[in-house]
Amino acid sequence: MSDVRQGFRDYQAKHFLWEVSENGRVGTIRLNRPERKNPLTFESYAELRDLFRDLAYASDIRAIVLTGAGGNFSSGGDVFEIIEPLTKMPMPELLAFTRMTGDLVKAMKKCPQPIVASVDGICAGAGAILAMASDLRLATPAAKTAFLFTRVGLAGADMGACGILPRIIGQGRAAELLFTGRSMTADEGHAWGFYNALHASDVLEAEALKLAHSLADGPWFAHTMTKTMLNQEWAMGLDEMIESEAQAQAICMATKDFRRAFEAFAEKRKPVFEGN
Amino acid sequence: MSDVRQGFRDYQAKHFLWEVSENGRVGTIRLNRPERKNPLTFESYAELRDLFRDLAYASDIRAIVLTGAGGNFSSGGDVFEIIEPLTKMPMPELLAFTRMTGDLVKAMKKCPQPIVASVDGICAGAGAILAMASDLRLATPAAKTAFLFTRVGLAGADMGACGILPRIIGQGRAAELLFTGRSMTADEGHAWGFYNALHASDVLEAEALKLAHSLADGPWFAHTMTKTMLNQEWAMGLDEMIESEAQAQAICMATKDFRRAFEAFAEKRKPVFEGN
Amino acid sequence: MSDVRQGFRDYQAKHFLWEVSENGRVGTIRLNRPERKNPLTFESYAELRDLFRDLAYASDIRAIVLTGAGGNFSSGGDVFEIIEPLTKMPMPELLAFTRMTGDLVKAMKKCPQPIVASVDGICAGAGAILAMASDLRLATPAAKTAFLFTRVGLAGADMGACGILPRIIGQGRAAELLFTGRSMTADEGHAWGFYNALHASDVLEAEALKLAHSLADGPWFAHTMTKTMLNQEWAMGLDEMIESEAQAQAICMATKDFRRAFEAFAEKRKPVFEGN
Repeated sequence: MSDVRQGFRDYQAKHFLWEVSENGRVGTIRLNRPERKNPLTFESYAELRDLFRDLAYASDIRAIVLTGAGGNFSSGGDVFEIIEPLTKMPMPELLAFTRMTGDLVKAMKKCPQPIVASVDGICAGAGAILAMASDLRLATPAAKTAFLFTRVGLAGADMGACGILPRIIGQGRAAELLFTGRSMTADEGHAWGFYNALHASDVLEAEALKLAHSLADGPWFAHTMTKTMLNQEWAMGLDEMIESEAQAQAICMATKDFRRAFEAFAEKRKPVFEGN
Repeated sequence: MSDVRQGFRDYQAKHFLWEVSENGRVGTIRLNRPERKNPLTFESYAELRDLFRDLAYASDIRAIVLTGAGGNFSSGGDVFEIIEPLTKMPMPELLAFTRMTGDLVKAMKKCPQPIVASVDGICAGAGAILAMASDLRLATPAAKTAFLFTRVGLAGADMGACGILPRIIGQGRAAELLFTGRSMTADEGHAWGFYNALHASDVLEAEALKLAHSLADGPWFAHTMTKTMLNQEWAMGLDEMIESEAQAQAICMATKDFRRAFEAFAEKRKPVFEGN
Repeated sequence: MSDVRQGFRDYQAKHFLWEVSENGRVGTIRLNRPERKNPLTFESYAELRDLFRDLAYASDIRAIVLTGAGGNFSSGGDVFEIIEPLTKMPMPELLAFTRMTGDLVKAMKKCPQPIVASVDGICAGAGAILAMASDLRLATPAAKTAFLFTRVGLAGADMGACGILPRIIGQGRAAELLFTGRSMTADEGHAWGFYNALHASDVLEAEALKLAHSLADGPWFAHTMTKTMLNQEWAMGLDEMIESEAQAQAICMATKDFRRAFEAFAEKRKPVFEGN
């Protein structure tokens, strides 16, 4: 496929850090303005959106870790670099902005790689949205997650939160977080199914990388199908879900990875997957 | 807007109590036949439906507390005043009744004010539906919540319960409550995300009012958008959710409340929202 | 109705055990190859699908218990009897297989009887799907439930899992189980709402039968409507849910069981339901 883009190892990110694991399979995005708790800016939104869009064509990167520098995940849209200019914009520019941030969530959902959010400290506003839009979420006991749009006079309806958050933690809890903007503690986040697991701060990132590598070393073509279908079936009826999965799984059964897994089982050894 | 209706302070409810807070922002609906645990009747259903419909045009009331008198929330449709007549009705009248009760839930979902249910004691049948149809729910440890339609020979499919309850507590737990009609304890309701918090009986209503006032004192136009979108995106795909919220949030960014919040932040004071 | 099929008491199952309770109301399906932890085969898939389809017309059986022999529920598709042949099949046959397994889930969802899964020990792969597709689920503390398709190189998108599992346990937990294939412990399954209750191994089946009988002795026509609507409203908007239930409940209000329940209440005795 001529459109396949390699060379993500050499990608030079401008508005965050981008690191690729030694084996080339796991990419880490690290929001990196630790002195301000890693806020997002117009430029970092756009570059994140573009990177996730490009990852759709990556042939090397198989899983992503999304994290922040300096003990925090992200404080969200910067008050002076984003919120102040927005308060002065005409409607078409406002809509262009909300569509751009929404496009970032769409790009995260549509890139084939599973995204593991690794969340310590502050995870607020658009930062909480980035965690929500990831596929799996790990946190420390100190993580504070707040959908605090209401605190700046806005709706909880930001980048899909009114639709996506209820499917993760339930409609009642999502309503509370979005109406009040209060912090969800890490324990709540874990008990409610927002965080898949909690780890101590000094091992969090190692655990996130371990999870990402285990996915990258697995049948990653099949994982891309799992991700596609988890997002694709959001609004389908039961019959349509089941027919869609009959087709999706038949595609996976036609891969050599399926045969590799069977042969490894029959020979009592661990399978080596190649994503085809 | 000529259609805006004020004067909810003077509204004289016939089949329940209606109280408005001193500052005119929070309305309390209190089901009030404590000697029978506040059952619903044909008349109270209709009046509740009409009140919630009218609240769509209110310019003063910004949040609602829904509660019951005398230590119980509501025992649901009265056995002799509702169930007995229904057992003798021809189909067109039955359907007119189920549509009227459904219209009450629709009106609760479509009124712009967040509704806080304050639940003590018995919360059964149509009473449980009223709690379910509220946006936020507080209860006491003694609250007993039962979708007991099956106990009178009916389906759990009442006023939207088979669709709404699973989104709040999960499909498996909802199936159990609707098939068996058993009581959900307050602890279960809290652990499952039906109740946002539990409070002792003697402070429950103060907590419900505090929550309602905090919403009413917040950016309440934006809150109406949060409520709209939480309900609007129920059956949308991911892309449609995100585009819908791009539009909804752009509208909120065009409000003065957004600028007020920024200016207050910049000046290190608390914002005063005006809902425009 | 000439299509009503009786005689399920005499049904001779070929690829599993089929038992009917003494009063003829509860049927038990027992996967029965305990020496291999009750795997599924092409033949047992097809026979299960056909039985659940036929149960749509049963006039006697009112509830189903689904379980396994010898202390395990089911190990899923047999490695040598199903997976090996699949690795050699052309695409049309693969799709015919995934559609057949999907048809089993559709048949379980469309048969009117509530299905109670009684899960001990291993509940893996297609076995986990059968539990997921049941209406209510009981387990022992030793139950290990794994959607382990990824372990054989396949997607989690199997028989509807990417759409159905998130509605039971939340999108984040479902993503973890489907991406990693890890076992969900019984305690997790209970806390997450997958299992309705846990019981000791020696009483599990008695509890499952007790629950099934309590449903079979209840207003079972109304139960069939509860089941229909729980599945029917999966992808409806709020308004459509509410109108659908207005119609569904009006139908139930026209049954004699509704009147029987009222009369029993008025006479302070237990109602006897007849499903009409």
